[in-house]
Amino acid sequence: MGCVQSFREFCDRPKNSNVRLSLPAVCIVWQTAMIILFGVFIRYDEESDTHWIEHRKTKNISSDIENDFYFRYPSFQDVHVMIFVGFGFLMTFLKRYSFGAVGFNFLIAAFGLQWALLMQGWFHSLDYSDGKIKIGVESLINADFCVAGCLIAYGAVLGKVSPVQLMVLTLFGITLFAVEEYIILSLIHARDAGGSMVIHTFGGYYGLAISWMLYRPNLNQSSRLQGSVYHSDVFAMIGTLFLWMFWPSFNSAITDHGDGQHRAAINTYLALASTVLTTVAVSSLFQKHGKLDMVHIQNSTLAGGVAVGTAAEFMLMPYGSLIVGFCCGIVSTLGYIYLTPFMEKYMKIQDTCGIHNLHAMPGVIGGIVGAITAAAASESVYGREGLINTYDFEGDFKDMVPTRQGGHQAAGICVAICFGVGGGIFVGCILRLPIWGDVADDNCFDDEPYWELPEDEESIPPILEYNNHMRNKDIVESNFTVEQN
Amino acid sequence: MGCVQSFREFCDRPKNSNVRLSLPAVCIVWQTAMIILFGVFIRYDEESDTHWIEHRKTKNISSDIENDFYFRYPSFQDVHVMIFVGFGFLMTFLKRYSFGAVGFNFLIAAFGLQWALLMQGWFHSLDYSDGKIKIGVESLINADFCVAGCLIAYGAVLGKVSPVQLMVLTLFGITLFAVEEYIILSLIHARDAGGSMVIHTFGGYYGLAISWMLYRPNLNQSSRLQGSVYHSDVFAMIGTLFLWMFWPSFNSAITDHGDGQHRAAINTYLALASTVLTTVAVSSLFQKHGKLDMVHIQNSTLAGGVAVGTAAEFMLMPYGSLIVGFCCGIVSTLGYIYLTPFMEKYMKIQDTCGIHNLHAMPGVIGGIVGAITAAAASESVYGREGLINTYDFEGDFKDMVPTRQGGHQAAGICVAICFGVGGGIFVGCILRLPIWGDVADDNCFDDEPYWELPEDEESIPPILEYNNHMRNKDIVESNFTVEQN
Amino acid sequence: MGCVQSFREFCDRPKNSNVRLSLPAVCIVWQTAMIILFGVFIRYDEESDTHWIEHRKTKNISSDIENDFYFRYPSFQDVHVMIFVGFGFLMTFLKRYSFGAVGFNFLIAAFGLQWALLMQGWFHSLDYSDGKIKIGVESLINADFCVAGCLIAYGAVLGKVSPVQLMVLTLFGITLFAVEEYIILSLIHARDAGGSMVIHTFGGYYGLAISWMLYRPNLNQSSRLQGSVYHSDVFAMIGTLFLWMFWPSFNSAITDHGDGQHRAAINTYLALASTVLTTVAVSSLFQKHGKLDMVHIQNSTLAGGVAVGTAAEFMLMPYGSLIVGFCCGIVSTLGYIYLTPFMEKYMKIQDTCGIHNLHAMPGVIGGIVGAITAAAASESVYGREGLINTYDFEGDFKDMVPTRQGGHQAAGICVAICFGVGGGIFVGCILRLPIWGDVADDNCFDDEPYWELPEDEESIPPILEYNNHMRNKDIVESNFTVEQN
Repeated sequence: MGCVQSFREFCDRPKNSNVRLSLPAVCIVWQTAMIILFGVFIRYDEESDTHWIEHRKTKNISSDIENDFYFRYPSFQDVHVMIFVGFGFLMTFLKRYSFGAVGFNFLIAAFGLQWALLMQGWFHSLDYSDGKIKIGVESLINADFCVAGCLIAYGAVLGKVSPVQLMVLTLFGITLFAVEEYIILSLIHARDAGGSMVIHTFGGYYGLAISWMLYRPNLNQSSRLQGSVYHSDVFAMIGTLFLWMFWPSFNSAITDHGDGQHRAAINTYLALASTVLTTVAVSSLFQKHGKLDMVHIQNSTLAGGVAVGTAAEFMLMPYGSLIVGFCCGIVSTLGYIYLTPFMEKYMKIQDTCGIHNLHAMPGVIGGIVGAITAAAASESVYGREGLINTYDFEGDFKDMVPTRQGGHQAAGICVAICFGVGGGIFVGCILRLPIWGDVADDNCFDDEPYWELPEDEESIPPILEYNNHMRNKDIVESNFTVEQN
Repeated sequence: MGCVQSFREFCDRPKNSNVRLSLPAVCIVWQTAMIILFGVFIRYDEESDTHWIEHRKTKNISSDIENDFYFRYPSFQDVHVMIFVGFGFLMTFLKRYSFGAVGFNFLIAAFGLQWALLMQGWFHSLDYSDGKIKIGVESLINADFCVAGCLIAYGAVLGKVSPVQLMVLTLFGITLFAVEEYIILSLIHARDAGGSMVIHTFGGYYGLAISWMLYRPNLNQSSRLQGSVYHSDVFAMIGTLFLWMFWPSFNSAITDHGDGQHRAAINTYLALASTVLTTVAVSSLFQKHGKLDMVHIQNSTLAGGVAVGTAAEFMLMPYGSLIVGFCCGIVSTLGYIYLTPFMEKYMKIQDTCGIHNLHAMPGVIGGIVGAITAAAASESVYGREGLINTYDFEGDFKDMVPTRQGGHQAAGICVAICFGVGGGIFVGCILRLPIWGDVADDNCFDDEPYWELPEDEESIPPILEYNNHMRNKDIVESNFTVEQN
Repeated sequence: MGCVQSFREFCDRPKNSNVRLSLPAVCIVWQTAMIILFGVFIRYDEESDTHWIEHRKTKNISSDIENDFYFRYPSFQDVHVMIFVGFGFLMTFLKRYSFGAVGFNFLIAAFGLQWALLMQGWFHSLDYSDGKIKIGVESLINADFCVAGCLIAYGAVLGKVSPVQLMVLTLFGITLFAVEEYIILSLIHARDAGGSMVIHTFGGYYGLAISWMLYRPNLNQSSRLQGSVYHSDVFAMIGTLFLWMFWPSFNSAITDHGDGQHRAAINTYLALASTVLTTVAVSSLFQKHGKLDMVHIQNSTLAGGVAVGTAAEFMLMPYGSLIVGFCCGIVSTLGYIYLTPFMEKYMKIQDTCGIHNLHAMPGVIGGIVGAITAAAASESVYGREGLINTYDFEGDFKDMVPTRQGGHQAAGICVAICFGVGGGIFVGCILRLPIWGDVADDNCFDDEPYWELPEDEESIPPILEYNNHMRNKDIVESNFTVEQN
């Protein structure tokens, strides 16, 4: 800790948030690199290539409708909406950081998905006959998934980092994700269709570890902008609802054709519905006068979708999904009420969006639910072929049994947490270097350092603020007088 | 009426809007009940069960793509967006009730769909071999439809009821809906793919009857919040457009595979386009200076989709759809201009969103259009097999003829109206009990009683507004001085 | 030019923006005409007709899932969202023109799609056996595409024209579009799946030419409303993101079943991702302090989707898509920085939304990319059948070779530009007639002339503001007195 401490002091130099050189440089150089790497490595797969017509004949596929495009494209578009509108607008709740929320989300997602196609391609879909990665609609979905991990991490550091830092966070985040995913899905042979472990647990702890490394001790004293206004909360509900509605597509997007996609959608739909009710219950119960808190409605209502991610394709049963959602609504809302303040005060983790409550904890719960469901699987419930299909007990794993599969699932959780925490500390160290153009504490949660703002919204020079402040104080005092009468 | 009068007086006690105990209690208890009932009754159907792979072989289904999931899932997601974003944001037009509009819509929809799966399951998809309800993607769509009826009713009482009342409204609404739907579709054998009768007529009159029972005579004197502001009208357009765009999916979601879904989408698309033009025409013509009224653009443009609901799957012909849309745009807009004020003044029905003009009237028109179209059906237009398929003249109804079918359709309208009005009066009686935490007239259309609001938006008592105003003037002046320096 | 000048003077009479008679008249008359023409000409095609069931048997189609509806409906819905939410909200960036942006976009799209079904039907899908136009889901997509051309043109004149002018712009725009499309696609046999030439180049120059004809020399002096406010920029991002996310569906909506749709979606996805990074780079590099400009993020990020439109269905290769997106982000952003001010100052073209940078230039680039890609096509890359399928070298064009196809593609660009510029000048002449109810310069970019605004948002002339302020004080005081009584 002494080492970390001295490193922190070394980094605490005056901030310069001008990114005029660094941001364009990073964007242009990295995009050029993407073009070169795509040129060397990436080609269409057999279903998106013009040779599909010949491929169809040799494989005796009777109709164009059996192209994987028609199985997955509607789900892909839903996932795409979640990534760009869902995550983007969910983070617009701050009163003066909507441009940054939507805009930087847009930037890092657009970069991340290209890098993800490469990283995931090298691990999962490299064609050894010609050394090329072959991409199709499933690759696009996986790239969006991969990006989701980094966007989750963005939630923890929202308003406190520069766009250049976010690009670095994304570059490393995607890289770590691809490795972690390869270990969990291919080496350990855990199943994780909706990414409870691979996406949410990893992304959550990755972001929290980075936020811990970038701890700003004096942030609270200058946090006049760390809160919402009425209409920014309504904007955030756009994000919430698109995430909530399309989560069944998220969890079913890459599951098996047929019953797999069907079942995953049903389970997620039910878990999410259940979460809404318990979130409302806890939010009302723990607030003065029973009033609801928009923070809970915007975030905790989604926890059920996270927690059912791994088990969505299993025979979790409709009531099982409801139970998972029930618990997660309670856990997540209590997390916002008790855990987030605790973590900020005692653990030096500032979590702007509360990703610990929305992604990290529900992700771990989802991993556990998945492990239990897998361990409890039996031929009597799944049918012989159903069991093999669902858990992919084929090839190297054809001797696998459900109980052992449960163990492998549990191992997956540990890998995800380790990669998240370890990777986050490592990347956090890099991001502490005073070269990335992040802002001083006073300018956190403010779009002004990185965006040309419309005239009427330019931040008010400090000299006026004092006046305003004094007058407002008078107003408050006079209000107070009136209220006492 | 004397009885009603005395009941009203009995109920007019001072209001206490604290729902800290009642709301959590209702949410937790009902959600627990859902889990138990789902555990006892609900299972996956054969297309979402792992036994699908065996089912495919026995039924000789050649490909996974013929799983009902791929026929209906894209439409389902569109319907889902309509329910949560469409209805939710359509109601955000009030200047200070956006949290309630989106948030309570979210809450009751999430509860309603669970209860709907049970209620509709018992009536429509109970498997008598094992006493279980088998659900698949079509069940999810039907549950969303069922919820739509209650959300329509919410529109009439928007801003005047507590979340607990809304939960009660939904519980009874779903129950009534399922019974009414069973009578109309199964017993009477009326066809109603887009729910003109089953959803819109029922939901509309259900809400209006409740609003009549909950009449607040002094509401107008305290309605400083009953209106929109500029940006709340823009938020409401998000709801309008998502409803408008996805209505073709709504009306085609549960129609027959193949030409049925195809035709329903085309008809709805055309009817809605036509409605927009006549809505604009009437809105401009009846306003001073020819200015357009946002209320009409937000609502009446959707009336064509409602009115084409029943007949969308029939051979209504493209020009028929245009005619239906043409008429509904006019009727609905005139309704907003003349009928809504009339109903409030003389019939004691306060209809916040004007659901009578958007759902009730167009729903009845839709029922009539459906009856006429059905009665006029002939083999020369439909083809022999087409006629049987479209109107489902099979099983018990294989001797049905189009003219009689028209009569059955008309009977369906009557059932929907009766259930709506009767059910609404009954539920309205219950909701008048002074135990549900609804607000006093002064606090109607205000998020403050049920939501933690951001600081700068706390409602300011009228007495303070003057003070603020005077100080603000000083601030403006002092700012002006500073700027001159 | 003398002629144009005198015509301009003739038209410069005092403005009367009351559209109380003209707007309703145009809407009702044209909608009635639509009903009559649809009655005479338009019928369901064989896949949306009840005879589908017989058609299936005769054509030996094994399953309902092969109905074109299931190939194209998800893409159709995405395109529909782009037209109504995408274009509508993209234009809400002005501080006081959001009603007009969303509302008039809604109006002209709803009219345009009906007229497009007729115009495109006459040219492309007239069934000569019975003289009827047969429509299906592909017709709906094409109608939406056709409308897109007019909505692009609306972007150039946003805030400066009356709704009646927009209806005229749309009527002629759709007509010209259908002719131009027929020439380019059918006569010249150019391929243009995503409409780089047919939609964007045409629509862009059509709008610019109209804007040139309607030049308002004194606009800048009264343009206090020509700018954004914070939350209007956030609303505009809703439009941007839905356009960006669903552009893969736009470019793949009417391509060949199977690999064609699959490949078009992948190419568009990649081009758009690449554009985001270069847009951010250029925006930051050319602004003081490296701050990002929302105008660029809202618009230039979409240029890659435009520019990949023609070639999306070809074997452009993933890296090819990235390169196209890379260049377009740079060109489009530089266009906003240098070209738009230049065109306004020296060429008398006022381009409110910068459609030249978002549609016209990238459209031309897209045409060129398409021509090059087509000319470079070879059997070794495409395969023999793939080449024939992709470029439709069948029927009259079965002797076509790739190099000649490249020439045909280039010819298509010229036709699109000519139709755009020529048509725009012609329609601009008509729109200069002083009978359409457009506003004076002072009232440009203001919703007030055409919309009933909520009370607190009525536009206040600057001179009155102080007076109003004083009066409001009196009003408040008098209210206060009243309330005390």
